[in-house]
Amino acid sequence: MEILSEIADNLLHLREKKPLIHHITNYVTVNDCANMTLAVGASPVMADDIGEVEEMVAFAAALVLNMGTLNLRTVDSMLAAGRKARKAGIPVIFDPVGVGATKLRTETAAAILREVRPSVIRGNMSEIKLLAGLKTDIKGVDSAAAEEDGEIIAAGLSRELDCVVAITGKRDIIAYRNRLCYIDNGHPSLAQVTGTGCMATSLIGCYCGVTDDWFCGAAAGILTMGLAGEVAQRSLRAGEGIGTFRVRLFDAVSTMLPEFILKEGKIHGVQIGN
Amino acid sequence: MEILSEIADNLLHLREKKPLIHHITNYVTVNDCANMTLAVGASPVMADDIGEVEEMVAFAAALVLNMGTLNLRTVDSMLAAGRKARKAGIPVIFDPVGVGATKLRTETAAAILREVRPSVIRGNMSEIKLLAGLKTDIKGVDSAAAEEDGEIIAAGLSRELDCVVAITGKRDIIAYRNRLCYIDNGHPSLAQVTGTGCMATSLIGCYCGVTDDWFCGAAAGILTMGLAGEVAQRSLRAGEGIGTFRVRLFDAVSTMLPEFILKEGKIHGVQIGN
Amino acid sequence: MEILSEIADNLLHLREKKPLIHHITNYVTVNDCANMTLAVGASPVMADDIGEVEEMVAFAAALVLNMGTLNLRTVDSMLAAGRKARKAGIPVIFDPVGVGATKLRTETAAAILREVRPSVIRGNMSEIKLLAGLKTDIKGVDSAAAEEDGEIIAAGLSRELDCVVAITGKRDIIAYRNRLCYIDNGHPSLAQVTGTGCMATSLIGCYCGVTDDWFCGAAAGILTMGLAGEVAQRSLRAGEGIGTFRVRLFDAVSTMLPEFILKEGKIHGVQIGN
Repeated sequence: MEILSEIADNLLHLREKKPLIHHITNYVTVNDCANMTLAVGASPVMADDIGEVEEMVAFAAALVLNMGTLNLRTVDSMLAAGRKARKAGIPVIFDPVGVGATKLRTETAAAILREVRPSVIRGNMSEIKLLAGLKTDIKGVDSAAAEEDGEIIAAGLSRELDCVVAITGKRDIIAYRNRLCYIDNGHPSLAQVTGTGCMATSLIGCYCGVTDDWFCGAAAGILTMGLAGEVAQRSLRAGEGIGTFRVRLFDAVSTMLPEFILKEGKIHGVQIGN
Repeated sequence: MEILSEIADNLLHLREKKPLIHHITNYVTVNDCANMTLAVGASPVMADDIGEVEEMVAFAAALVLNMGTLNLRTVDSMLAAGRKARKAGIPVIFDPVGVGATKLRTETAAAILREVRPSVIRGNMSEIKLLAGLKTDIKGVDSAAAEEDGEIIAAGLSRELDCVVAITGKRDIIAYRNRLCYIDNGHPSLAQVTGTGCMATSLIGCYCGVTDDWFCGAAAGILTMGLAGEVAQRSLRAGEGIGTFRVRLFDAVSTMLPEFILKEGKIHGVQIGN
Repeated sequence: MEILSEIADNLLHLREKKPLIHHITNYVTVNDCANMTLAVGASPVMADDIGEVEEMVAFAAALVLNMGTLNLRTVDSMLAAGRKARKAGIPVIFDPVGVGATKLRTETAAAILREVRPSVIRGNMSEIKLLAGLKTDIKGVDSAAAEEDGEIIAAGLSRELDCVVAITGKRDIIAYRNRLCYIDNGHPSLAQVTGTGCMATSLIGCYCGVTDDWFCGAAAGILTMGLAGEVAQRSLRAGEGIGTFRVRLFDAVSTMLPEFILKEGKIHGVQIGN
């Protein structure tokens, strides 16, 4: 299908242009996000002080905001960098980690939606449901929500916020205006490594740094991570577990070829509405 | 011996229940702690802002406080989350990294002991000696103290604070009330990787998230780490060093079977007092 | 050549003495810096709170200041620890990550040069040019500058600040007073992993912790990292990429022998001036 070719092309563009991806993110998975950004071919910068984020984001091709380890210092930085990016036409990718788990997270996410108006939101089903105003089970930062009705929720939230909404899970769902797609790549082991969601968000940032089609950028990031999970899992031998799996994720992304995306990508797209 | 069966059973319970383990920890080894928590089968959350820690810990099955990179912001969060956990009956595992090295660390540890009253304390010999009020050589955050009289020190401190005290070193010692045990698993390479102490503390948190017998939980966490060190070391081939060793620690924990614990665990327990 | 023997000897001293290396560094690569410090045989401590850095640095054999993720809290800590180290004769290694990218970074670097007067500065060509007051292209934290005239710039800045200046790139250049050397080890894959620059700076700190010849210490750290890159690259098999490469860097440093340095080190030294 057509979107796969677009993704494969964007991978090539990305490796040629090496877009700078500014992250304001958490201290748990920040190293993984930087290395994943490098693995796919882009260039990471992780500045988060209020005294420099507006200057830094001005150089960037995309801004990733991830609220994995929120604190008051970086919330202000996220808002300032986000507003600046938005004004400059730089895409903002938002990962609302653990929204709903605490008041601080819920309020911060609301402030980012309102003041930054992100270009792409990527979350698990619990997080997206929460943003959509639905009741959901929250337990820490991992998803405990059922995956039914994901497309309706994603499409509804996308329409409400006029941004790309991506839900990752067993089957990933991406919605924007009258477009919707499903991705069936990935492997359950991805949930056994911390930060694979964050890394998917970073990859979305990398792709959105080279295309104006953010729906496609979101699909590209999630597909790349899903394929990496499959490659990593297949490579495991007896006695190897999540340590080796995690290392192989970076191997898989850094050696991924456009042809592989075309051959193994499982995207199923539909037009919705009119 | 009986405690080994209890540990093997707890590993199964842990993988079934996937307890949420809230960490307020350092930014050096936080990613390793999160991945080790996942590797054993639990679920990590690392929130540390004063604005959300009390809410977050209410969901958790255990709270890990690690003062590896102390700062004033997180000290308050540790105290607030710790008090809340204590009140709610959630076990608090305390890792007094580098206590004695600076006044800030010594005072923070004292405040945590006084205000939080942890359920389990795990440290190296230098750290535990310091907490016990003994003179010791402190040099940075690694232990330089002799390992003599560990059982007397551990038992004394345990009695004084009425909590489980675990000293890790060549031979690990765990004391609580009239129970004491030694663990002879592990490998010197564990000291060549940063954060193996922190990861052992996280594993204690994971096990204490599924058992009320915190003495056994402490032994389980330390034993799991020790066995992982042995498995990782045995797997190394020519040219492989601490990079590969570190990856294999996660492999070993994520693939560890209860039978392996029963077969390879070297715990020697004794009753003390009456 | 003679400096190679000196480096090989220092590696042995380092593993014997296990010097404590105090870092105030960024949260992106801090774990890698700690593990690289351990891999070469030294002992890391990463304390950064203003309430303890002066006490902590007093135990240290070297202090590493890295401004990868600057914030106002740690800038003060860097200045306080740096001044204290300088007064106590403890070498200070400074990594001016991203200087020139933002006003905050440029001003912080200036303050460190003025108030701390580092013993060694290690940066990429963009960063060193910026410190030398030359115009350069800055894009985030990775170097985009041409590598011409590196020796003139390094020697000039070294003379101006009376400290060792090291520029890492395809060919590394180290200058101090009337000494200059080139290192031709390394591999382009090193630029595909975040933190290899930071890790080189940490390795310089480790070597400077056992020698008063900081020119040699700087060369030793950079050479060790370059050789590790070559070993790691040679070890890769089909399907392995930057994930495995990164793991092998730690393997290579932890298993590096003095004989290997003597055999594979490519240092070309010259006397300059009179």
